[in-house]
Amino acid sequence: MYDVHAIRADFPILSREVNGKPLVYLDNGASAQKPQAVIDAVVKGYAEDYANVHRGLHTLSTISTENFEAVRGKIARFLNTPTEEGVIFTTGSTMGFNLIAYGWAMANLREGDEILISVMEHHANIVPWHFLRERMGVKLVWVAPEADGSFDVGKVADAITDRTKLISLTHMSNVLGTIVDIAGVVELAKPRGIPVAVDGSQASVHMPVDVAALGCDFYAITGHKLYGPSASGAVWISDARMAEMQPFMGGGDMIRTVAQDEITYNDPPHKFEAGTPGIVQMIGLGAALDYMSALGMENIAAHEAALRDYALERFRSLNWLNLQGTAPGKGAIFSFTMDGGAHPHDISTIVDQKGVAVRAGHHCCQPLMQYMGVSATTRASFGLYNTTEEVDVLVDALETCHRLFG
Amino acid sequence: MYDVHAIRADFPILSREVNGKPLVYLDNGASAQKPQAVIDAVVKGYAEDYANVHRGLHTLSTISTENFEAVRGKIARFLNTPTEEGVIFTTGSTMGFNLIAYGWAMANLREGDEILISVMEHHANIVPWHFLRERMGVKLVWVAPEADGSFDVGKVADAITDRTKLISLTHMSNVLGTIVDIAGVVELAKPRGIPVAVDGSQASVHMPVDVAALGCDFYAITGHKLYGPSASGAVWISDARMAEMQPFMGGGDMIRTVAQDEITYNDPPHKFEAGTPGIVQMIGLGAALDYMSALGMENIAAHEAALRDYALERFRSLNWLNLQGTAPGKGAIFSFTMDGGAHPHDISTIVDQKGVAVRAGHHCCQPLMQYMGVSATTRASFGLYNTTEEVDVLVDALETCHRLFG
Repeated sequence: MYDVHAIRADFPILSREVNGKPLVYLDNGASAQKPQAVIDAVVKGYAEDYANVHRGLHTLSTISTENFEAVRGKIARFLNTPTEEGVIFTTGSTMGFNLIAYGWAMANLREGDEILISVMEHHANIVPWHFLRERMGVKLVWVAPEADGSFDVGKVADAITDRTKLISLTHMSNVLGTIVDIAGVVELAKPRGIPVAVDGSQASVHMPVDVAALGCDFYAITGHKLYGPSASGAVWISDARMAEMQPFMGGGDMIRTVAQDEITYNDPPHKFEAGTPGIVQMIGLGAALDYMSALGMENIAAHEAALRDYALERFRSLNWLNLQGTAPGKGAIFSFTMDGGAHPHDISTIVDQKGVAVRAGHHCCQPLMQYMGVSATTRASFGLYNTTEEVDVLVDALETCHRLFG
Repeated sequence: MYDVHAIRADFPILSREVNGKPLVYLDNGASAQKPQAVIDAVVKGYAEDYANVHRGLHTLSTISTENFEAVRGKIARFLNTPTEEGVIFTTGSTMGFNLIAYGWAMANLREGDEILISVMEHHANIVPWHFLRERMGVKLVWVAPEADGSFDVGKVADAITDRTKLISLTHMSNVLGTIVDIAGVVELAKPRGIPVAVDGSQASVHMPVDVAALGCDFYAITGHKLYGPSASGAVWISDARMAEMQPFMGGGDMIRTVAQDEITYNDPPHKFEAGTPGIVQMIGLGAALDYMSALGMENIAAHEAALRDYALERFRSLNWLNLQGTAPGKGAIFSFTMDGGAHPHDISTIVDQKGVAVRAGHHCCQPLMQYMGVSATTRASFGLYNTTEEVDVLVDALETCHRLFG
């Protein structure tokens, strides 16, 4: 039994007011709130067990190292990754994709090679590839979604050429909520020897993810969207791709020997984790994954599917609301504009007066905005603690907004 | 009046026991403990004010952004940097030096160019330059310290050539405690147009730093050593160097416009801060700098100088203890080996039984270890909360160790 009201009590911030109204937090796509269990793990990490990891032999360092390294297994189990050593700790998917770009792609692609991405990608899965375009002459090949926001894997098949050296796609659009059939993409890519990278920043939050079943080569997640601390995250990398990578960040821990004239590197995963890591925030991320796993990802997904259906029904009654993205089975992420004069920034500001936090802007998806012919949208994105009552508060606030702007 | 016992009460972990003995934490060089004010700022950041920054218009996002961006000014004032916009948020000095390497050096150096570093450097200020050696044929030129650990700026003058394109030095050695005369180095470098990068990871913790007075081009700090959260930090970059830099990490926030075929970048500092930053840990770092500033960096330095003198006096009475680094005015960082059979790892393990946390190993300074002809040392590194009584506990523990190993 998924008791959303009991769950809400686990999140201290959800009992606060905003502008004199109970907070209705619908900006989960940007970042999620943190349960007390995560905050407690962070406090314990600093107040009771803190020391630097790996390089110490004293008691606190040993405790800290054990707590920290245990998170690698938690992430591996959460995503069902084929290996645990393939889990590289990052500060989030942005660092994850930069690691893939600098560590793997820059070492393995040549001028004229092609990277295939979708028009729906977040800038984290676009800008690193623009670096390869600018610096190395790599070509970006774009695949657009359908009119309803769904994503046709057949179009990926059409866009693959002999020069395609990487396919990098989101698992769930942070604007449209569209779920991409990654297994279908891998089925196309694998026989051609093309690696597949996946941006799991949204999908890992909202549905069970089985990286082994997907068969991809890279899978990136972001801790602060997973109800964990800021600057936590990971990317899983297959053994085959790992073997082809050069180091990305240089510093302590990622080396084996350093001399004046030569250097040798540590084995993965440490080879790709330079310097003192985000010790306490990774421990906090472990607590967040424990929290989600205890609720059950299937249950979270079912709860959010019910929210999605309820919200879709309410939104459909608003004939002045233009929803972007209605792909079947989509996540509970709603991007929209409004007939009349209300700019997304106006909408965000007005609903904020009712205590409702939504996001307005391009959502780090400018190519998608250009494709949809808008400069910005408003986005309401739901999480495991949201309720149908909150959908009603949002709809009331949008109606106020529509009355004001006509 | 610097009341170290009152100060100790601000750090919850210092009241814990280790192996049945009060914790004597002398591993500050690796990472420092956190005052309650930092832990409280982190808890408040998650439990009351949390949202993603920059891209939101709703109340929580505005609060979070203001709290987060205020830290830039705190860092600028703490280090007296010539500009506030030159403060780039990082996860620590490792990321700071990788930003300098990938963002500035890789874009501006050519094969055969030289980077001048000292043999005392931490791997964070070595490995990124080895990347340039391996990938671009850049040459590393090394300057060694003197026998007592002091650093002769004259040797830098001797090592400069027409191909020297960067001088990158620590401000305080994390092994020897040596303070480097950065202003003297800048005086040599500036007329020749050679940029100077400084690793302030240790110096910023233990003495007042005035980046404007130093005149350097890059100054990197690490938050977790500054009594702040893990994965926080910053690097200050001069306007002249910033103008020569290419982006390092790609993602949200660091762009202005992203299209399928072209991209434009944001202005600094945001140009070099991709994706969702370490929001709450940077807010925590701000609280740590507030805490240190309230104590006064001059007062902290004076307290630690007294600890250093007391420790030096006690250590000198141990004629079987071999101290590495006795440069005049050095920081309260002591690296040593012991006559007889005790390996640094043994020493660390034995003193840990007495509740004393010290570090054993190469301290991420393998070239210095090679230069000193040792594979490892034990290191006791002091912080603002340590006491002369703790020096006595350490000395007692070392004497036990010496009795055991002879």
